[in-house]
Amino acid sequence: MIIIMKHNATADEIAGAVADIESLGFKAHLSSGEERTIIGVIGDERPIEPDHFELLPGVERAVRILHPFKLASRDFHPEDSVVKINGISVGTPQVIVMAGPCSVESREQLMETAAAVKQAGAHILRGGAFKPRTSPYAFQGLGLKGLELLREARDEFHLPIVTEVMSPQDVTLVAQYADILQIGSRNMQNFALLHAVGEMQKPVLLKRGLMSTIEELLMAAEYILSHGNQRVILCERGIRTFETATRNTFDINAIPVLKSLTHLPVLADPSHGTGKWELVAPIARAAVAAGADGLIIEVHCDPARALSDGAQSLKPDKFASTIAEVRRVAQAVGRTV
Amino acid sequence: MIIIMKHNATADEIAGAVADIESLGFKAHLSSGEERTIIGVIGDERPIEPDHFELLPGVERAVRILHPFKLASRDFHPEDSVVKINGISVGTPQVIVMAGPCSVESREQLMETAAAVKQAGAHILRGGAFKPRTSPYAFQGLGLKGLELLREARDEFHLPIVTEVMSPQDVTLVAQYADILQIGSRNMQNFALLHAVGEMQKPVLLKRGLMSTIEELLMAAEYILSHGNQRVILCERGIRTFETATRNTFDINAIPVLKSLTHLPVLADPSHGTGKWELVAPIARAAVAAGADGLIIEVHCDPARALSDGAQSLKPDKFASTIAEVRRVAQAVGRTV
Amino acid sequence: MIIIMKHNATADEIAGAVADIESLGFKAHLSSGEERTIIGVIGDERPIEPDHFELLPGVERAVRILHPFKLASRDFHPEDSVVKINGISVGTPQVIVMAGPCSVESREQLMETAAAVKQAGAHILRGGAFKPRTSPYAFQGLGLKGLELLREARDEFHLPIVTEVMSPQDVTLVAQYADILQIGSRNMQNFALLHAVGEMQKPVLLKRGLMSTIEELLMAAEYILSHGNQRVILCERGIRTFETATRNTFDINAIPVLKSLTHLPVLADPSHGTGKWELVAPIARAAVAAGADGLIIEVHCDPARALSDGAQSLKPDKFASTIAEVRRVAQAVGRTV
Amino acid sequence: MIIIMKHNATADEIAGAVADIESLGFKAHLSSGEERTIIGVIGDERPIEPDHFELLPGVERAVRILHPFKLASRDFHPEDSVVKINGISVGTPQVIVMAGPCSVESREQLMETAAAVKQAGAHILRGGAFKPRTSPYAFQGLGLKGLELLREARDEFHLPIVTEVMSPQDVTLVAQYADILQIGSRNMQNFALLHAVGEMQKPVLLKRGLMSTIEELLMAAEYILSHGNQRVILCERGIRTFETATRNTFDINAIPVLKSLTHLPVLADPSHGTGKWELVAPIARAAVAAGADGLIIEVHCDPARALSDGAQSLKPDKFASTIAEVRRVAQAVGRTV
Repeated sequence: MIIIMKHNATADEIAGAVADIESLGFKAHLSSGEERTIIGVIGDERPIEPDHFELLPGVERAVRILHPFKLASRDFHPEDSVVKINGISVGTPQVIVMAGPCSVESREQLMETAAAVKQAGAHILRGGAFKPRTSPYAFQGLGLKGLELLREARDEFHLPIVTEVMSPQDVTLVAQYADILQIGSRNMQNFALLHAVGEMQKPVLLKRGLMSTIEELLMAAEYILSHGNQRVILCERGIRTFETATRNTFDINAIPVLKSLTHLPVLADPSHGTGKWELVAPIARAAVAAGADGLIIEVHCDPARALSDGAQSLKPDKFASTIAEVRRVAQAVGRTV
Repeated sequence: MIIIMKHNATADEIAGAVADIESLGFKAHLSSGEERTIIGVIGDERPIEPDHFELLPGVERAVRILHPFKLASRDFHPEDSVVKINGISVGTPQVIVMAGPCSVESREQLMETAAAVKQAGAHILRGGAFKPRTSPYAFQGLGLKGLELLREARDEFHLPIVTEVMSPQDVTLVAQYADILQIGSRNMQNFALLHAVGEMQKPVLLKRGLMSTIEELLMAAEYILSHGNQRVILCERGIRTFETATRNTFDINAIPVLKSLTHLPVLADPSHGTGKWELVAPIARAAVAAGADGLIIEVHCDPARALSDGAQSLKPDKFASTIAEVRRVAQAVGRTV
Repeated sequence: MIIIMKHNATADEIAGAVADIESLGFKAHLSSGEERTIIGVIGDERPIEPDHFELLPGVERAVRILHPFKLASRDFHPEDSVVKINGISVGTPQVIVMAGPCSVESREQLMETAAAVKQAGAHILRGGAFKPRTSPYAFQGLGLKGLELLREARDEFHLPIVTEVMSPQDVTLVAQYADILQIGSRNMQNFALLHAVGEMQKPVLLKRGLMSTIEELLMAAEYILSHGNQRVILCERGIRTFETATRNTFDINAIPVLKSLTHLPVLADPSHGTGKWELVAPIARAAVAAGADGLIIEVHCDPARALSDGAQSLKPDKFASTIAEVRRVAQAVGRTV
Repeated sequence: MIIIMKHNATADEIAGAVADIESLGFKAHLSSGEERTIIGVIGDERPIEPDHFELLPGVERAVRILHPFKLASRDFHPEDSVVKINGISVGTPQVIVMAGPCSVESREQLMETAAAVKQAGAHILRGGAFKPRTSPYAFQGLGLKGLELLREARDEFHLPIVTEVMSPQDVTLVAQYADILQIGSRNMQNFALLHAVGEMQKPVLLKRGLMSTIEELLMAAEYILSHGNQRVILCERGIRTFETATRNTFDINAIPVLKSLTHLPVLADPSHGTGKWELVAPIARAAVAAGADGLIIEVHCDPARALSDGAQSLKPDKFASTIAEVRRVAQAVGRTV
């Protein structure tokens, strides 16, 4: 942290700031220029807010030097982390594809979709049993029944399962059925839930909040990592902006930015990132071209009958052609699918 | 819902859309213009997404006619709702003031602050026992100990208590101590938590998510109201925008917009809405001038020592002068404090 | 400027940065901590971008210390500036009201509106002759004919005129008719236009860009002030955010923030700030409660017939009641209208 | 346009709306449901705002059916437009690369850069002579001298020139030197300038405003096209959002959305879209993977000495490797560079 004193700060105010810094266990390093005095705070600044210093008399501003995250940081862990799930590795040159319906709706729907995505080359099956819905009048998911169907599909098609958990109480239950626990966008800063999945020691797919910064995403990962759970996969899924032509704005910049800041694998969700099935293929290609370690894509055999997110779901044949296109782009950037 | 067919939709496609509408239990009303056919969907459209129709062959677009919320709507309940809490009424011409520290830090800190805000005219004491923090390394609140201190302050100063609950598991516990359960901004779409506080039948202070639209805020209220819990108070607390001069952008427009759309009381939080103590008084005055039914303000006797949100906390004397200013504005718009 | 060297910066890199600083005419002040070295740049940093230093080897980050604006700054000019226009003073305890139609459409329309706003207490008449329209197919204003009508209304009702100028070529012409030159939101960073109105030495009403930061607004003012034209009035008119319930989000925080950063008067435009006539009165009251020095409001005698911005225009009787409400709020904060 | 009457609209109000529609030269088509009446407006609705109808008594809402742009629309012109510039075609399977310094700073700088980008495979040379700068204290460009240097480089390296024009007065001058007139992001809604470049009948590179929607970009193109100037190239260059890790958020979704809505070629500017040179290569690859028809990239031989935008400029060797990477991705999506 650097503390910038006001132009007219008095010697007493400077001494007061130094005393405050030392009372917190840090060392202070003074630099007195012509215009103003600057004080460096020596030590691990992460637990302290710049606010604290800005309220001291004579202080104009305090500026962080270090990123506020540590365990998620590439400084702390320079090598790429690889998250292993039942023989599948996320975070290697192979681009991993997770696919399936937004919601589990019935055995028939799930099995048909699982067969199709397996056939097209997906590595992991996604499907929602507990659904966060803006409206209390919308379909809320099949709950336990949905988990059982996911398990059935998992066993039949040998596809690991990723599914969302929405509440700390449900973590133990969902963990019995799922290979990867998904934290949805709206729950990215549900800290009770982050603690609970951190405790569980299972792989976690952490989706970026639709109006969360990249730094906040890494701080949310830090909550999980701080429980010693190393298997965290991040996911960019679009942010909320002023543009209304698409449901969200897929933040393609976030992919290389995250890859430079953190060792954790980074996935892309072009289905939520656009909200329109016609845009899924170009954004999937773009995400892989930009360096994404994997994709998560919504697929439904009859989107017009989907109980949620039909507009952004691909039919199986379109999903298959999308994967073929992604494969060519992956090869162009030295990767496989 | 209105369905706009494509310019070149065939008679079969139009017949297909009509059949689909009727299969869902609605009536279809056709209007064939020169350029294209439009189909009105007659019936309660709330449970259906426009998506559903947009995926049918030959459909260009589907447009909602009704608001997706019902119980929260002024159409449904034209009179202002008044929420009563231990003899205090929120939603009347009297502007209600909730004040206190961001976090409960110690008995001494809480009692001193409670005495000061009571003295300055606050009606309800706020204070956090469970704290949502971006960083796992920051102070997370005193938990149960904090609740006990709040109860002690409540009894000593005869001030009802509002405090945040972050997890469904904690709702029963927090409800034993608090008069109003607060849902924080980051949890506005934590649907498991909304269900839990809906069940509890206690007053709820529901803060707008920093990334949520006004419509989403009303849909979150709808979750609580759908449990028969009528005592919901809404709170505008600033949204996230591109402007970085302030922590958030206080959406002053939201106050009259909410008052026109809903019968529920609407509070303003100028502390989070600005993030800077110097801005709390002008924004508190503005919110009341725009029609807010109350204010929630952070007060701390020694902001530089606060364990959270020091930069936006008022000292007691500044809080007292703010209330005096707000009182004059309230009178100018025909209200009291 | 403060330069933060990387953790592992070499002695050569540090020496290189110091040499670079000195080559630009600044002094360098080193502060070597345990973790990293920090270099203070001593001198007027405004012409240099932090970018410049961030590209030097071994540099992690460069942080500005000073605001990039100077002439607009309260540090430079601590007293409030008062802008005088034909006997009317903007920037005093009196709240100044500018009102009139969005576009000048006809003599009858303008005269009728001018009479009404004069009667209701407006101090200055607004009206557009050159109109920036999103669509080339929309009404583009009457041009010179509109200016002539404004001049006629000015003489008949003894109201100074404010009208928009959209192009550097038109500045001389518009200045012959107008008392205040308005720079519209879309032109806030039209630098050729800013230079031209700076040269003209006439009062300027500078509206904030709909996605411009407060700092950028002050930099735009700096362009005009740098020509020695001191008579600049700023105007908050709403920013673009994710919220779609209103046309723009009126940034109420900007009013006290601007009043603290700059000596220039600050107006509020609740018509564009909301986009809906029902919201103009509450936001006008709020803006004055927050410290605005004046208001600019769209008024039309027959909004449904308006050729632009009908939805946000007040009818004369509603305008008169709005002014009465604003007057009471002004008195509550120690001002007049 | 569809007009939705209020639930309780009277027969007189409905008749009034119909009369209004007919008075504007449209036909009205009534559809009376159980809940409410809907009126279709038959005719070219583009010149009318929904506002107009929303202010009529008894009207709840008016909804546009058609896009407000016409000449730019793929409905109007289904085939891709190809813009030809001195033998180079933009809008074909070949990805066109424009590259060069942000600002022209000196003959030596420009010639060295031009040689390097030519060598690496660029098709068109970019360079700013008139520079829009946030601060009046920053380098404003060499003006005419810069244009002369660009012409010299053009002749020496046989590279067509693209350069920005900032003011209607300068259009004739700049058109004498440039092959493509660039409209910068801040001037996308400078309508006087759009008219002027429309008149000039030269190719135009129209950059999306950092605060502009995709629809507004197409409406700005419509201004130029309405002068019969067909040679308009669009450019996505990043939008302003809440994320601060990058200078702008590159809106990758905009590329396929634009390609579906319009026949005009679409370029990507990864330099401004990210603001950081490290991110230029991955975003350039992503843009081409998503379907961009070309790239515009800032290159500088000594970025730390650049007078503008050094942080986002590539050195020549990095530019060359970026083009090589882009070429592989282009091939993967069936294109060339």
